[in-house]
Amino acid sequence: MSRFWSDIVHRLAPYTPGEQPAVSHPVKLNTNENPYGPSPRVLAALNAELGDHADSLRRYPDPTSRALREAIARRMGVRLEQVFVGNGSDEVLAHVFQGLLRHADPILFPDVTYSFYPTYARLFEVQYSTLALEADFSIDVDAYRRPNGGVLIANPNAPTGRALPLSEIERLLDANPDSVVVIDEAYVDFGAESAVALVDRYPQLLVVQTLSKSRSLAGLRVGFAIGHPDLIEALTRVKDSFNSYPIDRLAQVGAVAALDDVEWFDKTRHAVMATRDALTADLQALGFSVLPSAANFVFATHAEEDAGALAAALREREIFVRHFRLPRIDQFLRISVGTDAECAALVEALKTLIKVAS
Amino acid sequence: MSRFWSDIVHRLAPYTPGEQPAVSHPVKLNTNENPYGPSPRVLAALNAELGDHADSLRRYPDPTSRALREAIARRMGVRLEQVFVGNGSDEVLAHVFQGLLRHADPILFPDVTYSFYPTYARLFEVQYSTLALEADFSIDVDAYRRPNGGVLIANPNAPTGRALPLSEIERLLDANPDSVVVIDEAYVDFGAESAVALVDRYPQLLVVQTLSKSRSLAGLRVGFAIGHPDLIEALTRVKDSFNSYPIDRLAQVGAVAALDDVEWFDKTRHAVMATRDALTADLQALGFSVLPSAANFVFATHAEEDAGALAAALREREIFVRHFRLPRIDQFLRISVGTDAECAALVEALKTLIKVAS
Repeated sequence: MSRFWSDIVHRLAPYTPGEQPAVSHPVKLNTNENPYGPSPRVLAALNAELGDHADSLRRYPDPTSRALREAIARRMGVRLEQVFVGNGSDEVLAHVFQGLLRHADPILFPDVTYSFYPTYARLFEVQYSTLALEADFSIDVDAYRRPNGGVLIANPNAPTGRALPLSEIERLLDANPDSVVVIDEAYVDFGAESAVALVDRYPQLLVVQTLSKSRSLAGLRVGFAIGHPDLIEALTRVKDSFNSYPIDRLAQVGAVAALDDVEWFDKTRHAVMATRDALTADLQALGFSVLPSAANFVFATHAEEDAGALAAALREREIFVRHFRLPRIDQFLRISVGTDAECAALVEALKTLIKVAS
Repeated sequence: MSRFWSDIVHRLAPYTPGEQPAVSHPVKLNTNENPYGPSPRVLAALNAELGDHADSLRRYPDPTSRALREAIARRMGVRLEQVFVGNGSDEVLAHVFQGLLRHADPILFPDVTYSFYPTYARLFEVQYSTLALEADFSIDVDAYRRPNGGVLIANPNAPTGRALPLSEIERLLDANPDSVVVIDEAYVDFGAESAVALVDRYPQLLVVQTLSKSRSLAGLRVGFAIGHPDLIEALTRVKDSFNSYPIDRLAQVGAVAALDDVEWFDKTRHAVMATRDALTADLQALGFSVLPSAANFVFATHAEEDAGALAAALREREIFVRHFRLPRIDQFLRISVGTDAECAALVEALKTLIKVAS
């Protein structure tokens, strides 16, 4: 607390990201990182940018990230003016809150979803109402037929992993022609349907994606949004009033290389999906209920074991999973899909912690 | 214009960064980049991070940038809790506007200064008043003895290059004990005195610096602020409500390496200062008046030649300098200090453009 703070600072409730363990060889299944590295083309592109000295770094990056936006447009089948890029999808979402979601009516999002959303809302003084997920943690899009200043849905949802089919997204859009509908597709490449296919038909639709998960570039911080050029222009105006050069030279070239390697992208995301399905079966065999996941994580609860206690016991074994002390989900663990070996290590540890009724 | 925009977007006046020329070998003296590359240790650090694959990039960076903040604390002689880092000093300044400068009274800054300041003010709805520089473009700190919600001074000032001595900064602080005083020291290492020496005595003082200029890392996007832990906490709260991981893994390791190579830093900044002084003499010989500069650029005007016409004529020769179409300074050129060869090319071109009275 300080008299020097702007008023807003006193009211903030900052987001807490997952722990970055200090131990040397953790089984790290807590922040939904990809267990496989990025495309080998990323290293080649970085080496080409750096050469035998780092002199290119003395120059500012392209403030418009044009080559990167072109790569995204190419990959996603949209036009350049439909693409916005930012420093991770978290920065993109921040600009969305400030530039597209501050209206007279509150915005709507589910009560259980990415816990950064209410944090953004406080920072940018955006009013919001949360709508309860169904008992099975699915989203009833009919609940979003009410006056609002915008709708924000993560699809697949976090931390549940449940996906809405594209037909439901269309119903949501048809019910909300006059407000911005943001679909946050951070995890879409692991088994859900992207709403990018709808952007030419719905001028109020903005789709947000990231290179952190399916392109395995969490360390480089690149996210993007796709939508009508009018929506993109709002984000660009905010960005150009905030930071001219949010994406550094290395992130720009690395991201382009990752986007252009479709073969690596498909191979690794399908490997993650196969491991997810095996992990789900193993967890069910241990007595967990596991929500159907279209993401690179599973959300699991055990009828007889306390989730917080399990997470703490796993942590002592240097196995990190995410546990949220939040209403409705405090008996769940969110477990990122690692390699087969990492998931096996987790399952073995759980076997020692859980007395399976037999 | 779109009905989907937040109100604020309609009122924005985004900052325009200097042109990034598309030609292959420009003489690029328009964005105050360092003519020398970063420390060779930067490349070594990046190679060590990447190894023979880019797998480390699958992991999120340290959200707190602890190693980088430690390197800054070490270099600047302050404690860790006095250091905040951001995605370039532009992002740091954005958080400063939102977190420390929104109060009932308007903030104060000079009429001629970094033209991003009014842009931030519009984005974050911060009221401001500008105070006119003296006729010689110096700052009279006594003018800042009036009620305010904060004071923001670039030292050296941009685009003039003029510096205030530390004794004047102290007078400014003594006159403003109840509002945050931000000293933006983007160019301080080229000949001005840093106010970091004062942070332990003035709890309202925040000093902002960048690695883009004197550490030659414009391409990596790293800036920082130093001040009382209470001020740093406000910035951290805003950052953690905006983007958990604004500085990627490569930027963090590259920046640490640059900060730790004091020898390279001193050698290259002194080379820039020597070239600046020679360039100043050459420009004066061509009839320019050149403001005394403590930065890596000079601000020059010619009694008989139109500055905009000169900038355009230089541009045709693929020599890029910055010309601002703004009140009071539209007859000035801001010329970044390049290598001796780049400055010689500029001077030769100017000789052909200017009929020196003899």
